[in-house]
This record gives sequence, structure tokens and C-alpha cells, in this order.
Amino acid sequence: MTDAAFARTPEPPYYAVIFSSRKTAPDPAYADAAARMVQLAMLQPGYLGVEHAAEADGFGITVSYWSSAEAIQAWRTHAEHAVVQQQGRARWYEHYELRVACVERAISFGRPS
Amino acid sequence: MTDAAFARTPEPPYYAVIFSSRKTAPDPAYADAAARMVQLAMLQPGYLGVEHAAEADGFGITVSYWSSAEAIQAWRTHAEHAVVQQQGRARWYEHYELRVACVERAISFGRPS
Repeated sequence: MTDAAFARTPEPPYYAVIFSSRKTAPDPAYADAAARMVQLAMLQPGYLGVEHAAEADGFGITVSYWSSAEAIQAWRTHAEHAVVQQQGRARWYEHYELRVACVERAISFGRPS
Repeated sequence: MTDAAFARTPEPPYYAVIFSSRKTAPDPAYADAAARMVQLAMLQPGYLGVEHAAEADGFGITVSYWSSAEAIQAWRTHAEHAVVQQQGRARWYEHYELRVACVERAISFGRPS
């Protein structure tokens, strides 16, 4: 069974962007923008996948995976993404930490069925 | 204001362990073991912090931060931790992905108060 919450990444090395955030008060425009950004990210060269989990209190972690640091840099400066990043800082995020990391090793576990 | 959900990490480089998991049915013993492992991890050489978020459906992401790959390796083979890892595979996890990554760049954002 394929579990769509997991990104299907290749053998390392590849890159991860670890985005930990605390949102401000709920805003319906956020969900639309977030969904649009995932759609747009999927179209970028070097995109490998994304995983996301959030607590009810507004703290969440999104990890996106990329083939290279150059692919991340290109996505960071994508025009439509840059506008949404600015909205995020102005309206949606109380605090965030963004970390760019090179994945060196990976292990998978799946329960035997 | 300090938000305890965020790890307070130093300037890169340092290491991250990205642990994405889907839990099986809820088990009260899991929460006890998870809390014990966080307490124990904090005592290990090279531990820098941890961030965690989980969805109500059992999918979650835990990212722990470490000063070096050697510190991660030592924690991985810690005797009590090894026993709990085995319990995790036997009872608590349907699926997990564990990725060890070197953090190269980090950016923080905090809303001006």
C-alpha cells in the first residue's frame, strides 16, 4: 500500500528544506496559497516530494525534498513564490525556521503485510 | 517570547535527523516511551534540540538536531534507545522514513512585536 503522506525520494545524496513554523490566527487565504505553492513546487526542476504535519495549535513542520541546492535556490527566487513568501511574513507566520540540508543517509521501514 | 516548539540551534553546519512516521493504532505505552526517549536524547553528547508535529491521523514528523554525524551514530546505538527502536518496529510504526542530513544554511523569521 502506498501512503501518500511520505515523499518517495531517491537514494541520497539529495537536499531537504526543513520549514518549521508557528502560524498566526487562522486565515482562509492561507490554505489556498499553501495548496497553490505545493502545485507550483511540483512543477519545478529538481522537486522530489514533500511531507507535512501540523499540530492543532498552529505549529507545523513541512519538509520538501530537492535534487540539488541549485534547485532550491531557483524555487526560492521564483516570482510567484516570492510574493507568497512576503505574504507569509506579513500575515501568516508568527515565527519560522528554514533549514537547508543535504541528506546523506536514509532508511525506510515498512511493516510486513 | 520564546516558543518552546522551536529548537534553538547554532549557526550551521550541524546535523538533522528527519523522522517521518505513520503510527499504528494508538498505544498508551508509546507516549511514555517517546517522552523517555526525548529525556534521554537531551542527555547525549552533541544533542542540540528537537521539533515535532503530528496529524490526528497518525502521520508525524520529528526532527532532531545534532552537532555531528558521530553524535547521531552514538545515539542510534545507545542501548536503551536500541530496545525502544525495536519496539517501534514491532508495535508502533506502520511505516517510517529516517533521513540524516547536514544543515548547511538556516534562516529565522520572527514577527516584530
